[in-house]
Amino acid sequence: MTEFKSKIRTIQWLDTFSRMVDQTLFPYEFNYIDIKTGDEMFAAIKTMIVRGAPAIGIAGAHGVVLYAQELNKLPRDEFIKKLLEKADYMTTSRPTAVNLMWAVDKQKEIIKNSKSDVKGIIEELKQNAIKLENEDIEINKKIGDFGAEVVPKSATILTHCNAGALATVGYGTALGVVRSAFAKDPTIQVFADETRPRQQGARITTLELTMDGIPTTLITDGMCSYFMKKGMIDMVVVGADRIAANGDTANKIGTYTVAIAAKYHDIPFYIAAPLSTIDINIKTGDEIPIEERSHDEVTHINGKAICADGVNIINPGFDVTPHELISGIITEKGILRPDYKKSIADVFKNL
Amino acid sequence: MTEFKSKIRTIQWLDTFSRMVDQTLFPYEFNYIDIKTGDEMFAAIKTMIVRGAPAIGIAGAHGVVLYAQELNKLPRDEFIKKLLEKADYMTTSRPTAVNLMWAVDKQKEIIKNSKSDVKGIIEELKQNAIKLENEDIEINKKIGDFGAEVVPKSATILTHCNAGALATVGYGTALGVVRSAFAKDPTIQVFADETRPRQQGARITTLELTMDGIPTTLITDGMCSYFMKKGMIDMVVVGADRIAANGDTANKIGTYTVAIAAKYHDIPFYIAAPLSTIDINIKTGDEIPIEERSHDEVTHINGKAICADGVNIINPGFDVTPHELISGIITEKGILRPDYKKSIADVFKNL
Repeated sequence: MTEFKSKIRTIQWLDTFSRMVDQTLFPYEFNYIDIKTGDEMFAAIKTMIVRGAPAIGIAGAHGVVLYAQELNKLPRDEFIKKLLEKADYMTTSRPTAVNLMWAVDKQKEIIKNSKSDVKGIIEELKQNAIKLENEDIEINKKIGDFGAEVVPKSATILTHCNAGALATVGYGTALGVVRSAFAKDPTIQVFADETRPRQQGARITTLELTMDGIPTTLITDGMCSYFMKKGMIDMVVVGADRIAANGDTANKIGTYTVAIAAKYHDIPFYIAAPLSTIDINIKTGDEIPIEERSHDEVTHINGKAICADGVNIINPGFDVTPHELISGIITEKGILRPDYKKSIADVFKNL
Repeated sequence: MTEFKSKIRTIQWLDTFSRMVDQTLFPYEFNYIDIKTGDEMFAAIKTMIVRGAPAIGIAGAHGVVLYAQELNKLPRDEFIKKLLEKADYMTTSRPTAVNLMWAVDKQKEIIKNSKSDVKGIIEELKQNAIKLENEDIEINKKIGDFGAEVVPKSATILTHCNAGALATVGYGTALGVVRSAFAKDPTIQVFADETRPRQQGARITTLELTMDGIPTTLITDGMCSYFMKKGMIDMVVVGADRIAANGDTANKIGTYTVAIAAKYHDIPFYIAAPLSTIDINIKTGDEIPIEERSHDEVTHINGKAICADGVNIINPGFDVTPHELISGIITEKGILRPDYKKSIADVFKNL
């Protein structure tokens, strides 16, 4: 398999702190920011300096290391008790993405099970954070390889939001599929939904794809059906924030609308996500908590109001695409197909 | 039928010029602008100072009067020849809305058939423009009355773009239905799609509905399915820019996506439009020309870029909703139902 070389490294642990791309200034500036305390990390996740389910997971793992460093003067028992509290607190920074809980849980296992002293535990947490980073990239490349197999020749791939290198440590999930497909077939191209309210498709996906030289067309969210009807979209690939045991998938608000449009036009609709995104404790999408975000995201763009005063706002950050609209879930262990209840149970049985 | 009193008069002929609400500064300013030449009117339509299919029709009729006033020194034959050329030119300012052609044609009939001298023709054109204005308001109120009959009690009505008072001379088509329903039942409310790229839902619909005291919730275009699935939307009503003889309907880009989502959730989807929007010369939606608009509308908001340089843009201003997704077309002669080929032919036969 030809491997695509991306220019982007979203988040990285550097000895005593976390360095990440600051995603709040896109597309105007591409800057790195160093996060040196646990509370700074909590804020970075909450304000979406770092975003994207897999990247948030790694950020959470880094956050636990940062808190551990701050608590290093405590006696071992107290250190463990306090750090577990801080770890739980870290998971409350964003409620929908399960990867955050998953990565923090991996750190909590070390805290609970380590036989080392405080210094040793901190070192183990650091090493585990780095391991999770490297695994994330490897997992993304595997997702990319499996996904590339179902991308038609010269395909135009529609994606929503940003499930790219900038939503992960490096390669991307949905855009990992794009990168791997593009490495084999440079005639493929991407249509990127703007993804209101926060415009991650416009601000982030167009940025990372043009940085990597992949041809990209930006469309507004309402346009997807127009291009589908014209036969200009061959497949849809999006990421996921949480996948239930039956395949129902929470992803950025607007995804469900795209999935319905794809179904209506008989266009394959794929989810690309690591297995860490699957929450087998949740039976259906109805149980996934949906984050309600600030009303300003809807009413203001670049700090300027776009609507009348006195209008009501509801701003769900995510929606749930029911499993019956999903053609396949592309994971690092292959593409899961319906019946998802069975295929998901099987892949977890064999882990 | 209780009649709703709206505060808004979008366009009006005042003796020698046309006064209209300037819709380019919404939601920040609500100003009137006086258009005093034919070329100014052409530009006002093209740059969307005035927009909305029925309002554009009236603006076109006013534009013909303005050109007539400018040509008033010519001998009668030359006046008629030049004015017919100018009238045809006026119809090229926006290609999709058929009302523009329809209203200009009404003026052309007067130019061709009048027995008067130049001064007399100009006076006839003025009187006809005023007649078309008054008829537009009356037609909208009839549309409102017929539409209100199919609005469920305490309904939440989703609309896309702005087919309101500000898209017509006064009352509105889709929002005329809302106004008439609200006059009978003040517990109804509206969900307004933002309607990217130009955000007419956010900038115009929220403004005119809050001005008239009708409860309104602004949502982004991708959110519609989320609220439909939650059972929070009872019906969809939108306007139209051109309706083919089989019921296929061109309307603002994004309408087709909403129609598919409504179908998927079994929610009634209505078009509200005057019969002048129906183009019986066009058999299906495939024949409706779709205006391709400036790329800046997608890449910039309030003058600031929202995406990376080097990204491709396609910006169709309209899409076509196929007749099979439309529950009914609410006109001033009642609600047309499928089979539209038959119901549209019948209503035109009886005009």
